[in-house]
Amino acid sequence: MIDQTLLPGEIKQIECRDVSAVWEAIKMLRVRGAPAIGIAAAYGYVIGLQSANHQDEEQYFVAAGETVDYLASSRPTAVNLFWALNRMDQLCQSLRGEMGLAEITARMLEEAQAIHQEDREMCRAIGRFGADMLSDEVQGVLTHCNAGGLATAEYGTALSVLFTAQDLGNDLHVFVDETRPLLQGARLTAWELMQRGIQATLICDSMAAQVMKEGRIQAVITGADRIASNGDAANKIGTYSIAVLARAHGIPFYVAAPSSTFDLSLMSGDEIPIEERHPEEITHGFGRQTAPPGIQVYNPAFDVTPADLIDAIITEKGVIQPVNRNNIIKTLQVV
Amino acid sequence: MIDQTLLPGEIKQIECRDVSAVWEAIKMLRVRGAPAIGIAAAYGYVIGLQSANHQDEEQYFVAAGETVDYLASSRPTAVNLFWALNRMDQLCQSLRGEMGLAEITARMLEEAQAIHQEDREMCRAIGRFGADMLSDEVQGVLTHCNAGGLATAEYGTALSVLFTAQDLGNDLHVFVDETRPLLQGARLTAWELMQRGIQATLICDSMAAQVMKEGRIQAVITGADRIASNGDAANKIGTYSIAVLARAHGIPFYVAAPSSTFDLSLMSGDEIPIEERHPEEITHGFGRQTAPPGIQVYNPAFDVTPADLIDAIITEKGVIQPVNRNNIIKTLQVV
Repeated sequence: MIDQTLLPGEIKQIECRDVSAVWEAIKMLRVRGAPAIGIAAAYGYVIGLQSANHQDEEQYFVAAGETVDYLASSRPTAVNLFWALNRMDQLCQSLRGEMGLAEITARMLEEAQAIHQEDREMCRAIGRFGADMLSDEVQGVLTHCNAGGLATAEYGTALSVLFTAQDLGNDLHVFVDETRPLLQGARLTAWELMQRGIQATLICDSMAAQVMKEGRIQAVITGADRIASNGDAANKIGTYSIAVLARAHGIPFYVAAPSSTFDLSLMSGDEIPIEERHPEEITHGFGRQTAPPGIQVYNPAFDVTPADLIDAIITEKGVIQPVNRNNIIKTLQVV
Repeated sequence: MIDQTLLPGEIKQIECRDVSAVWEAIKMLRVRGAPAIGIAAAYGYVIGLQSANHQDEEQYFVAAGETVDYLASSRPTAVNLFWALNRMDQLCQSLRGEMGLAEITARMLEEAQAIHQEDREMCRAIGRFGADMLSDEVQGVLTHCNAGGLATAEYGTALSVLFTAQDLGNDLHVFVDETRPLLQGARLTAWELMQRGIQATLICDSMAAQVMKEGRIQAVITGADRIASNGDAANKIGTYSIAVLARAHGIPFYVAAPSSTFDLSLMSGDEIPIEERHPEEITHGFGRQTAPPGIQVYNPAFDVTPADLIDAIITEKGVIQPVNRNNIIKTLQVV
């Protein structure tokens, strides 16, 4: 995998040849983004099986359980980590006694590859639906934070729409919000777009309105972390601001996210708690103090964009437009 | 004067005892803000006279001219620098032969003090008009960039309104945009508010909309760099964004600026050129590279907020409300 902590200064592929290397990569955020963490954990589980004692079934399954516990401790708040480890371990346990240990190990590698492949296909489907939806008049697109391949398998979610549009011959110019405080836009999205040869211009978050006013943006696309059953969408702080600005400038605002992002138990975005992060992310942005000691800080990690500001939600199952509870349920085919 | 380059980490008073120290302070941005630069230059002119040969009138006025040329070279784009040096030098030349050199030097110190005092009074008048205008329901205020005492004499412009409101017993809570890329809000405004014991909370620019949505802001006040005859106001990049967000949340947006900020030769803000600054302010903002090498950057230093988004302009001559050409001319008493 690419060590994301070194981006954009250095592109370094790291090879994880034992479980502790996978653990360390997740822990130290060398791999980040919910889907990417799940995929890394699934392969990590296989590495655990590969290095287990294949002569002793008892020891083999003890080792499997230890691998689950160990990898789960790498980032205890990452939901996809547990989802992937559970899926792997349940299948593995179900195969006990059904086949030889070498066969089980081989089957589990296939399962990790399946998780990887499913994510890749999900990203591609989002890209196809989204690119179909972008009219030919769209040339300038604004995005916020990083919803690209670094966080997923290959194409990402919001960026998948842009990558797919490019594949289809639509030359876009993408404006990238730097995304304070952690600068995922500047560090990761700008890098991904450059890697693919897509025209990209980096701006500060406070410049988005000016770029809109200059008529250089015809669509806004972001990802989402969690979407309520009415379509209210939580995403990186600053997303709500852009949605309001887009509406004021008559620019459509789109969210691209897999169906797994929906939490249908939530009636609205009001039920999504807003995590506050450490003040030092703002006061000591990059190793240097840029604010007076003792200043109060408000550092919400996310905000919630109300459904009525979202022109469409692009999922791997189709486009939800207009965004409302009925269309969400219909598109996700939840009965 | 306070060395602003060391803020907020260190509060260091520097004493400028010769003209070259004043030149260096202006050149190195130890003093910044148009009015503050003018005041520093006026005192620098006096220091030049004080160290001139008082036994020889010819040499005395040669030294005065040299001081003007030298100080003018410290920051060739600062309009107030030339304005102050011209005002000082014209008066000084007019006194030649009218009185002794020691008397002229004393008179010129009074003139520098007058420039200082006029700015102080202008700031205070803006503060009084603004504080009168803020209703008692206003508790939370948002400001952007630095329009405080560091840029002027004592009270500043936008911050003068807040300081005066506090003097009148109105306990405000001020939300301070950090103001990327150069972080004047985080470094300077946050510091000034803390120095005066005003409750202040630092946020990233992208968080302003969220704070508005939470109902914690009842007014927005910023400064301005240049205002057209129709009320369109140029100010630090990000101001326009906040004005759009304030309108969307039903929050009044005020500009505080001295009458000298108006450029009545401009019919609208469309005639105000937007200066673009160096990409490294964004890509190397914190002493570390935070974006991929070679990424395109758009870094406008200013934006223009259209008059129809400005609920009032607070000047030292009164409050312009509603903002339109007639009210501007009436308040500025331009015939």
